[in-house]
Amino acid sequence: MTQHATRERRTRSDGERTRAAILDAAVKLSTVDGLEGLTIGNLAKSLRMSKGGLYAHFGSKEELQLATVDAAAAIFTTEVVSPSLSAQPGVRQLLAFCDSYFDHLERRTFPGGCFFAGATLEMGTHHGPVQERVARFHTGFIQLIHQYIRTAVDNHELAETEDPRALALELNGVLLAVDTNFVMYDDQTVLELGRRVVRRRLGVTEGDS
Amino acid sequence: MTQHATRERRTRSDGERTRAAILDAAVKLSTVDGLEGLTIGNLAKSLRMSKGGLYAHFGSKEELQLATVDAAAAIFTTEVVSPSLSAQPGVRQLLAFCDSYFDHLERRTFPGGCFFAGATLEMGTHHGPVQERVARFHTGFIQLIHQYIRTAVDNHELAETEDPRALALELNGVLLAVDTNFVMYDDQTVLELGRRVVRRRLGVTEGDS
Repeated sequence: MTQHATRERRTRSDGERTRAAILDAAVKLSTVDGLEGLTIGNLAKSLRMSKGGLYAHFGSKEELQLATVDAAAAIFTTEVVSPSLSAQPGVRQLLAFCDSYFDHLERRTFPGGCFFAGATLEMGTHHGPVQERVARFHTGFIQLIHQYIRTAVDNHELAETEDPRALALELNGVLLAVDTNFVMYDDQTVLELGRRVVRRRLGVTEGDS
Repeated sequence: MTQHATRERRTRSDGERTRAAILDAAVKLSTVDGLEGLTIGNLAKSLRMSKGGLYAHFGSKEELQLATVDAAAAIFTTEVVSPSLSAQPGVRQLLAFCDSYFDHLERRTFPGGCFFAGATLEMGTHHGPVQERVARFHTGFIQLIHQYIRTAVDNHELAETEDPRALALELNGVLLAVDTNFVMYDDQTVLELGRRVVRRRLGVTEGDS
């Protein structure tokens, strides 16, 4: 390999690392100040970088917001979706999804709680590419929950009369209420309450899976 | 009554009307742009008033935010809390609270859905007087729900084993999930789904109360 190629690779890799560090800060900041509160100015300040340096990575506020949603989705996938995908099909997947969500809050991955809980409410009425991106990920999570519920019904773990849309709304609601109360009152006990409510609703009587 | 007194009264009453109009616009705007997105500048623009005119009513952004939270709480009390207070004690009060909440969304009182759903998530990490004011009202609503649940248990409408804190979290969750989905996807059907979920959870089988 030539010295030139080595330098090129290092440069690209440095650029990627910087971009990843910027997006990590952007996801965290936006759980406190919102996606609309995220500006290249305040992000530059929090990273102690120049605005010019940030503009080299993100040409506009919208580009920064879209990349931030993608970065948040990647973290949510790793921390919440993946553990559920690898659980036993059916009720165990629903339980793993909810438990991983509570763990995600408990380890305080982001200072302002769940990125998507905040982003869906904040961006709901802001029609445009950022709202569409948030909605697309949100829809994806909900469809996954529907699929888990249908599997659990097929497996006779849940009653045949169970309406997947209704149960998904209920579980989605428990996660949102736990997030809101955890962030608002910094109340650890609501995580345990959430875990109990989910277990009772799914008819899981033992402790962890 | 002297002419002077009449003029004074009219002036005060004009001032009150203007203040009420400003707060009405402020509550609506903040369900779209957030309480932090609410500035005297953009409020003046939306009302076609001068910034100076607004400063005469609210000396600072924080004063405007606090008055906006109070105005939103007054509307929530009229539209959601009051109908529940006048319902038959117990389960009917819980049902009236939830149904009135869905009605409040359905009639699109605010463009961005429920003020408090957005405000609790937005202000959760913004410690200070505005967050405390939002938390105080939120706590008040939740305590009222707890009280309704205890009455329903005393009346043997709900099982003695019902944990008020758990059921309140579940109902709070259904309201939040319906609000989020209604605002995000402009989906009317989620209101009906919410009404059904609440009825099933409370063991109410007939239609409306």
